[in-house]
Amino acid sequence: AETTRIAITPGDGIGPEVVGEAVRCLETLRAKHGLAMEWTRFPWPSHAWHEEHGDSMPEDALKQLQAYDAILLGALGDPGPMDDPDRYLLPDSISLAPLLDMRKGFDQWVCERPARLLPGARQYLADERAKDIDMLVIRENSEGEYVSQGGRLRKGTADEVATQMEVFTRKATDRIIRYGFEQARIRAGERVKEGRTRSFRTLDGRTCESQVCLVTKRNALRYWGDMYTEAFEEIGKEFPDVATHHELVDAACMKFVQSPWAFDVVVASNLQGDILTDLAAVLSGGMGVAPSCNLNPTDPTMPSMFEPTHGSAPDIAGQGLADPTAMLFTTARMLEWLGRKDPTLAAAGKELFEAVAADLAENAGSQRGTREIGAAICKRLTA
Amino acid sequence: AETTRIAITPGDGIGPEVVGEAVRCLETLRAKHGLAMEWTRFPWPSHAWHEEHGDSMPEDALKQLQAYDAILLGALGDPGPMDDPDRYLLPDSISLAPLLDMRKGFDQWVCERPARLLPGARQYLADERAKDIDMLVIRENSEGEYVSQGGRLRKGTADEVATQMEVFTRKATDRIIRYGFEQARIRAGERVKEGRTRSFRTLDGRTCESQVCLVTKRNALRYWGDMYTEAFEEIGKEFPDVATHHELVDAACMKFVQSPWAFDVVVASNLQGDILTDLAAVLSGGMGVAPSCNLNPTDPTMPSMFEPTHGSAPDIAGQGLADPTAMLFTTARMLEWLGRKDPTLAAAGKELFEAVAADLAENAGSQRGTREIGAAICKRLTA
Ligand SMILES: CC(C)[C@H](C(=O)O)[C@@H](O)C(=O)O
Ligand SMILES: CC(C)[C@H](C(=O)O)[C@@H](O)C(=O)O
Repeated sequence: AETTRIAITPGDGIGPEVVGEAVRCLETLRAKHGLAMEWTRFPWPSHAWHEEHGDSMPEDALKQLQAYDAILLGALGDPGPMDDPDRYLLPDSISLAPLLDMRKGFDQWVCERPARLLPGARQYLADERAKDIDMLVIRENSEGEYVSQGGRLRKGTADEVATQMEVFTRKATDRIIRYGFEQARIRAGERVKEGRTRSFRTLDGRTCESQVCLVTKRNALRYWGDMYTEAFEEIGKEFPDVATHHELVDAACMKFVQSPWAFDVVVASNLQGDILTDLAAVLSGGMGVAPSCNLNPTDPTMPSMFEPTHGSAPDIAGQGLADPTAMLFTTARMLEWLGRKDPTLAAAGKELFEAVAADLAENAGSQRGTREIGAAICKRLTA
Repeated sequence: AETTRIAITPGDGIGPEVVGEAVRCLETLRAKHGLAMEWTRFPWPSHAWHEEHGDSMPEDALKQLQAYDAILLGALGDPGPMDDPDRYLLPDSISLAPLLDMRKGFDQWVCERPARLLPGARQYLADERAKDIDMLVIRENSEGEYVSQGGRLRKGTADEVATQMEVFTRKATDRIIRYGFEQARIRAGERVKEGRTRSFRTLDGRTCESQVCLVTKRNALRYWGDMYTEAFEEIGKEFPDVATHHELVDAACMKFVQSPWAFDVVVASNLQGDILTDLAAVLSGGMGVAPSCNLNPTDPTMPSMFEPTHGSAPDIAGQGLADPTAMLFTTARMLEWLGRKDPTLAAAGKELFEAVAADLAENAGSQRGTREIGAAICKRLTA
């Protein structure tokens, strides 16, 4: 196979540390299986770039990154040096911009965040059935509430009016909903292969192996709520084997807490998906284990981007304390994704996932440092 | 005191049943204390009105209701008769309209939803500290994401574009944030009186008795996010005794699950508040106990509206199965609110709250019907 090329952007705070362990695992896997894969590191700490250029990435960053098959991102967000008030508190809107820039620039229109409560992960819910949580939250990642249109009229005065426009297109709606149904079908197929089954009721009383739950707030945000609903009903007809369900976002959040194990695939808008994925992450163990994938499944010239859901945790940065687990699950997911072109990478991704999951299960609650966890997982990979 | 007049709108589904118990309790309290209070019932089931007039309330509904000091609402939402496909599935946008119409028509700009995990309420979280949950979520209730501006261009085609405008004014932002700080102060005062204390850290290292946490998504929804942030910082200066904190909505949802006991007062926009209040409700026992208050604290000619957070539960309507607990907590809150004009009502509200809480604590997990629960609470009130 052609060599797969990965761009690594370690970012800020604990980013470089957890990325370090990801690279160790990638090296171990490459050596073990002779994988045709290489990577390049782009050390673009937000603060440094911002001080030089007012931006948190080099001007041609996207152009540089586009040459790669995938981007592995550590973490973004740098409040700056606390002891220098002039430079302290670099606003999130600057240091997090690369995330939104990459999503937009590479049209990564799917944000996929699987949530399973793996053995060893922290369980926040009292109900034992939380162990059965196994959902995939799919967030529309290209438009909606995140279009950044709007402004501030009479800014700073008592008469100020701030507007923010939400823009939804039927095209982006259709593709994300269809993607959700396809994933539901794939997940059902995998479950059947593994001898696990689930069962969901359709509105007309049939039983299906999988379900897509659409989340909107159509009783208050009517325009796109109705469009989403219509698209969902239409596309759902192409997938008679997948049960459908519709929840309002407030009720969905409530049901995530009450019975998260009842969900399979969940499709939501950009902002509502942002909220639901964080909630799904905490219900399945918290930020310490949650991967996040920003995918462009349609255009092979555009790299997809993989990041742990956690932030840059500046308070513990540089101390070797950060848990690389989420980063390594993310790396595994990236390899599986790259496996669409090179199946040896998919196998390596699965292997990494299993190693990280086994490490998590065996070391629940242990106090280990970044390198120690990475080393334990590499050891598992070579054993 | 002048007679206080309450408009009761039982609504749909289980609404009339739970309202029936509220009326029993009101009668009991009136008889016991000779309260100067009367009420009128407005039986406006959504479906009936919709079939006659295309609307779910009479045309002059708001005018009729405005003559009252408060509105006690049962529940709204009526899917219609399941056996008649032509009439089935009255859309939420119609049957829930009265809620939004009242909030707007009476400028009920505060939506207040207290969340405490009372003894006997269902605990969804594993951590025992959940027992200490005691927060007040304050939702901006007059504008923002709920202005209903927008539309659908090329509706129903592959090229459709749906827009939804969010509009925020500094005036409404200031008043809701100031209201939040005032409530924080009041809550701190009440705690001190009751000998309970809490302690919150300010950014400059001082310790306060209370805290306001502002929730926004300013890193993505920048325009109003920045305006909210500026207003919060400015108004916060008037309340040096109240600690301040800012969370992004996704992180806030996560922290609600991880450590809800750490929050005191939370202020959020209309939609984000909708989501956070549902989440707060489930963390403090679920819909079965959650009250909701839509308040106009500034214009005495406008009635405030009180509703349980739960829906109309058409599946169990008419069977005497609905739990009236949330409705009765709501009624207690209404009496406390009306106590601003007539202190005997505030005392009755407190009495009702204590009776409902005691009933909940003693009957955790019991299977009782609507009337049985109402009767037990009335008995407590007369004992
Ligand atoms: C950093 C922020 C802009 C981002 C988002 O809202 O998408 C983050 O919360 C996420 O979920 O990836
Ligand atoms: C019914 C709906 C329009 C309403 C809202 O979103 O405000 C409800 O969810 C609530 O929280 O009172």
